[in-house]
Amino acid sequence: MNKNRLEAFSDGVIAIIITIMVLEFKVPHGEALADLLPLWPVFLSYVLSFVYVGIYWNNHHHLLHAVKKVNGTMLWANLNLLFWLSLMPFATAWMGENHFATMPVVVYCVDLLMCALAFTVLQNCIIRHEGPDSVLRHAVGADLKGKVSVASYVLAIPLALLGYPGWSGVLVGLVACIWFVPDTRIEKVLNER
Amino acid sequence: MNKNRLEAFSDGVIAIIITIMVLEFKVPHGEALADLLPLWPVFLSYVLSFVYVGIYWNNHHHLLHAVKKVNGTMLWANLNLLFWLSLMPFATAWMGENHFATMPVVVYCVDLLMCALAFTVLQNCIIRHEGPDSVLRHAVGADLKGKVSVASYVLAIPLALLGYPGWSGVLVGLVACIWFVPDTRIEKVLNER
Amino acid sequence: MNKNRLEAFSDGVIAIIITIMVLEFKVPHGEALADLLPLWPVFLSYVLSFVYVGIYWNNHHHLLHAVKKVNGTMLWANLNLLFWLSLMPFATAWMGENHFATMPVVVYCVDLLMCALAFTVLQNCIIRHEGPDSVLRHAVGADLKGKVSVASYVLAIPLALLGYPGWSGVLVGLVACIWFVPDTRIEKVLNER
Amino acid sequence: MNKNRLEAFSDGVIAIIITIMVLEFKVPHGEALADLLPLWPVFLSYVLSFVYVGIYWNNHHHLLHAVKKVNGTMLWANLNLLFWLSLMPFATAWMGENHFATMPVVVYCVDLLMCALAFTVLQNCIIRHEGPDSVLRHAVGADLKGKVSVASYVLAIPLALLGYPGWSGVLVGLVACIWFVPDTRIEKVLNER
Repeated sequence: MNKNRLEAFSDGVIAIIITIMVLEFKVPHGEALADLLPLWPVFLSYVLSFVYVGIYWNNHHHLLHAVKKVNGTMLWANLNLLFWLSLMPFATAWMGENHFATMPVVVYCVDLLMCALAFTVLQNCIIRHEGPDSVLRHAVGADLKGKVSVASYVLAIPLALLGYPGWSGVLVGLVACIWFVPDTRIEKVLNER
Repeated sequence: MNKNRLEAFSDGVIAIIITIMVLEFKVPHGEALADLLPLWPVFLSYVLSFVYVGIYWNNHHHLLHAVKKVNGTMLWANLNLLFWLSLMPFATAWMGENHFATMPVVVYCVDLLMCALAFTVLQNCIIRHEGPDSVLRHAVGADLKGKVSVASYVLAIPLALLGYPGWSGVLVGLVACIWFVPDTRIEKVLNER
Repeated sequence: MNKNRLEAFSDGVIAIIITIMVLEFKVPHGEALADLLPLWPVFLSYVLSFVYVGIYWNNHHHLLHAVKKVNGTMLWANLNLLFWLSLMPFATAWMGENHFATMPVVVYCVDLLMCALAFTVLQNCIIRHEGPDSVLRHAVGADLKGKVSVASYVLAIPLALLGYPGWSGVLVGLVACIWFVPDTRIEKVLNER
Repeated sequence: MNKNRLEAFSDGVIAIIITIMVLEFKVPHGEALADLLPLWPVFLSYVLSFVYVGIYWNNHHHLLHAVKKVNGTMLWANLNLLFWLSLMPFATAWMGENHFATMPVVVYCVDLLMCALAFTVLQNCIIRHEGPDSVLRHAVGADLKGKVSVASYVLAIPLALLGYPGWSGVLVGLVACIWFVPDTRIEKVLNER
């Protein structure tokens, strides 16, 4: 089966997710700067989610780079990832409109956690299919970044529930920073061979 | 005529349909968990439709895989399928907001039925064009899954009208499960040759 | 310059236009069939516009099929066409919500007219660039369908202003029917050569 | 790394941005021409932004034309550009709904300025990667158009703040005109070689 259509469809869905989030960033009624300023939490959550969806697109790009053949299981593992990503606009809007209140932050972190797990499932699914000697298997290695991310999301949930949703937001923002550096492991292994 | 643009356009429309459904999943006004929980029927109908649109993308992917040339009739049969799929966000939102009430469930099932019939029309259209000896003709065979699906949608409509819309929803959900297993018939026939 | 990206971008914009029109088809508040039925003018105008945008995608597909090189003028002629197509969701929604009232029908017909003229401009732009001996030049010929369409839109505008907007709608619907038959002229000329 | 997916993703995001702006162009409640006419500032700002996003797509198309390899830095420089472009629908709607009032015009010009700077960053990023002898390096040259644009946006901001937001709009519209002529420098250098 052709991996081009899988890439094209995923690119399409991710491009729409990253763009429709701006539709939740509603135009204020007044025309003064004072009408715009209260929107900062909505803007901040938009920026955070734009970065996260950008990271997922970037990593997805790298992940499929090493794939040769696509099977049915991968299609569903990929749709699973897209499903959790598709909830980002909702979670982002709820968090922004409620100024990073406890439950919206928890729901946002749960969605990030589900995205991270879905990405890991897709990654394992590809590794199993490509064999133990595959480029991806060597490139991913111990997957430290992935494990730190999952641990941080897991930590951010009780942190918010204990009354520190702002710190959960900071933690999740820091995790975004570690992914900001593009993942060059796959290219490295490809170049070595 | 080039099948790439047909695939690209269909991928684009399906990617948008699957993603804009989340726009109907409106952000609640409050910030408590209690404000989120009443949204479960909206969420459930979103999940169901996400799976269904995913199934259609998947099957469409397989269907066009075996096609060599695209003619004008196929373009219109394909647009017909996209039309019924494009009504999914509307039907999903109406069903979710009314907690799986009778008429919304009937409309949803009618839309699923129209999608299934449109898919069959496109499939027959391709088979007629590719000839009786085509890969697709052998792969589709008796098309048991397709027939069971259509029969279930036809059954789900009177079931809802008789006052059991919840059971219609369950039936339609079970049909989604039988399609969840990816359709490997086309690959099988291709590999055999 | 590469025509693939022009096709991909146009496909993307047209796919989004055809799909977001359904967002204007708002979910009714009640759950009864009686709440759904008053939406028939909105649905009818949605169907009409879906068919029209489908026709434009189809014809655009054929038009670019014969193109070898893309220049800057074509890019802008193409964007001009996409601009007028992008106003379709607005014109469709206004016409549907006002039950095919005079001014909304006039605006809808003006938009169709501008789309048709923009398509002709793009077509001429390509013919001029490809030369008098081009495939497209021979395929288009006298462009009877195009001329009948423009004449019908021009006629539909005063018809609506004189108090017969319903008949304008019927006329515009009939024009859609003549385009429904796919345009095989370009393939014919390509096959002859 | 493959530049095709970068192009496809950027095309997708830009196609969505250019199309969802029309969703902010809300359907008026009445059916008379008098209900439509007050929408002219919304329409005008829509036209301006459509042209600007079209210019960016066009220039982006040219920019990547000369690129051979894509690295991680380019991916992020590209996402940065897409981020500022994604704020266009918001800035456009706020400016249109407030009839080109001071602060909305300032915000719109700031967004245009950020887009222009992000484009320059992406351009420099590509030039640095392609080397001092690259096609792009020679094609861009002194980048007069780019500098005039940035200077105009910088000028338009105090102009609006001093009470002439209408003139800022005119200035920004004139800048669009100088970009309307497609950028043939890259093709020229490519043809010369």
